[in-house]
Amino acid sequence: MTDSEDDWEGALRIAMVAPPWEEVPPRAYGGIEQMLADLITGLSGRGHEVTLIGSGSTGVPAKFLVTYPEAPSERIGESLPEVLHAAQAWRALEGMPADIVHDHSLAGPLTALGRATPTVVTCHGPAGGELGEVYRALGERVNLIAVSDAQRADAPDLNWVATVHNALDAASFPFREHKEDWVLWLGRFSHSKGPDLAIDAARAAGRRIVLAGKLTEPCERDYFEEHVRPRLGPGVSYVGEADAGRKRELLAAAHCMVFPIQWEEPFGMVVIEAMACGTPVVAIGRGAVPEIVVDGVTGFVLREAAELPAAIEAAGRLDPRACRDHVERHFGVGAMAAAYEAVYHRLLAAPRPVRLTEEPGPDRTPPGCR
Amino acid sequence: MTDSEDDWEGALRIAMVAPPWEEVPPRAYGGIEQMLADLITGLSGRGHEVTLIGSGSTGVPAKFLVTYPEAPSERIGESLPEVLHAAQAWRALEGMPADIVHDHSLAGPLTALGRATPTVVTCHGPAGGELGEVYRALGERVNLIAVSDAQRADAPDLNWVATVHNALDAASFPFREHKEDWVLWLGRFSHSKGPDLAIDAARAAGRRIVLAGKLTEPCERDYFEEHVRPRLGPGVSYVGEADAGRKRELLAAAHCMVFPIQWEEPFGMVVIEAMACGTPVVAIGRGAVPEIVVDGVTGFVLREAAELPAAIEAAGRLDPRACRDHVERHFGVGAMAAAYEAVYHRLLAAPRPVRLTEEPGPDRTPPGCR
Repeated sequence: MTDSEDDWEGALRIAMVAPPWEEVPPRAYGGIEQMLADLITGLSGRGHEVTLIGSGSTGVPAKFLVTYPEAPSERIGESLPEVLHAAQAWRALEGMPADIVHDHSLAGPLTALGRATPTVVTCHGPAGGELGEVYRALGERVNLIAVSDAQRADAPDLNWVATVHNALDAASFPFREHKEDWVLWLGRFSHSKGPDLAIDAARAAGRRIVLAGKLTEPCERDYFEEHVRPRLGPGVSYVGEADAGRKRELLAAAHCMVFPIQWEEPFGMVVIEAMACGTPVVAIGRGAVPEIVVDGVTGFVLREAAELPAAIEAAGRLDPRACRDHVERHFGVGAMAAAYEAVYHRLLAAPRPVRLTEEPGPDRTPPGCR
Repeated sequence: MTDSEDDWEGALRIAMVAPPWEEVPPRAYGGIEQMLADLITGLSGRGHEVTLIGSGSTGVPAKFLVTYPEAPSERIGESLPEVLHAAQAWRALEGMPADIVHDHSLAGPLTALGRATPTVVTCHGPAGGELGEVYRALGERVNLIAVSDAQRADAPDLNWVATVHNALDAASFPFREHKEDWVLWLGRFSHSKGPDLAIDAARAAGRRIVLAGKLTEPCERDYFEEHVRPRLGPGVSYVGEADAGRKRELLAAAHCMVFPIQWEEPFGMVVIEAMACGTPVVAIGRGAVPEIVVDGVTGFVLREAAELPAAIEAAGRLDPRACRDHVERHFGVGAMAAAYEAVYHRLLAAPRPVRLTEEPGPDRTPPGCR
């Protein structure tokens, strides 16, 4: 992450556009919304004036402009709330002075086309698929921030202007030196997260394993029934979806966390959460894993599932303090906020030519109506 | 509808943006796509150069720019295809000369904000809900066309520039003078379309009824099981979803079509389709019904369901030829194309002030990347 304490050049007016689906910070699940809450807190702490545009209400230190008074969580992924939120955010942005717009929503960047203020977009999903194609079409009109270099490598031709790793408030995660003897798997039940590989590896290592994760979507239930339930039994227990408090207890107590991902994970918040609790991460080295885990120090970065059992055992020899230190040093909210601040200043310093554009103005004669 | 044969002022370059979900014309279901195919045919026939931006392939007389090579029909309503389609359509529009952009998609109008070319948007859904809120937020940046005056009345403050009724190619609908003795209900199985009211009315009139309609979504199945299946029996038959050919046979053969809607239907294509076949429409007069059906001539416009049975009987005294004539005179593709053409010319004649806008240009120095 860029160290940009030196880049400080004065306070900015930053408009932050959240996705419509959850409040900021989130009441329960919501990775983007937690990152956003931390980022806003960090930027405000550095003296910037942040305006948040989002759903519901908020507890972050920012002015707040609301689109949906009640976050439409149960409609996540539907096009109409996405588009309405973007249209209302655009309208709100038209009426406020801002130096920079930082958009975290899907449809919001479409409105960047009609704005002189520079728009920064954090790519929160995989850049190799349709999301990357959206940004490819928008080209230089949006300034993309990657959450990892691995994410950028999936679509190197996009208009990336920086990589800024996600972060967390380490103070909100409990450090625990002495661990219990079981390993933890935490995530969504899907092939990409490898819960079945985690179970098989724990068994091979002769360790108990605790599984915690979301089991609500039909595809999650299908995966659980087919690949996880047959593996339950002595030493393998599913404890349901963990809320914020329970998640911290599990992360802090575990011998190690296994993270046997089967896809190019763009970041992986739970990896830094585990390390913040002093818990090493035994992971397949796909996606951003090699950027986040220090192999042999804060966990192990492996090539294949066959290496998991030995690494689970070896994790007991790693120093919990080293895990915590790594997160505090490289994945703190202060560093993330400073890195984003540096990007904003860099963009504002870049020359932007004045272009003559013909467009409807407020005093246009309205066409007659039937 | 505006008669605009006199407004002819020369050929226009018209960019037509379809929704991503179906081809134009549609292979099966797709009301907007059929209207779009007819409109493009009508405009091309009047000498305009139309470019269609859409999914799959097309059979209409227009240049064609593709976003999704295969129409993502099964993902209808999802935000990612909607936004990707809009982003790619925007990119395509940037690279082509056009006098006017006519957008029929949901997210597409968000990109109108960044374009000097005027954008016309046909509102294909109810204007009173979230869709209307999208257009309210976009304000004068999009020029809205209503498909009925009733639709406009639901949100009179929006930036409506005209009402243009939908239309059809009457030559593709068979006219039939002599009818059979049963009544027809055709639609989606939902409260808003009143299939249960139709059955009860036919029974009260002592007529057989044929129901044809889509029964695929869970909510449609639920409505069918609860409100329709208990009413099936002698004289009441469900014949499944009708394809284009079967729909025409049913519409042409029926004594009348019952249209007991329980919501403010913005238009109602099946109403003009029935009349085109010479079949009177017995309808509750909500939404656009009073604008489309000539009460006592091409059907009956009623206040409540209790009036349906008598009107079903009285429909036998109406003249099938009058129904057909009404559609040919007021709902033909030629009239619709002429009315849209008049709107385009009116907007292009309105003064549009030149505004100085600062924005990133192609020769901008790229910010350094990490």
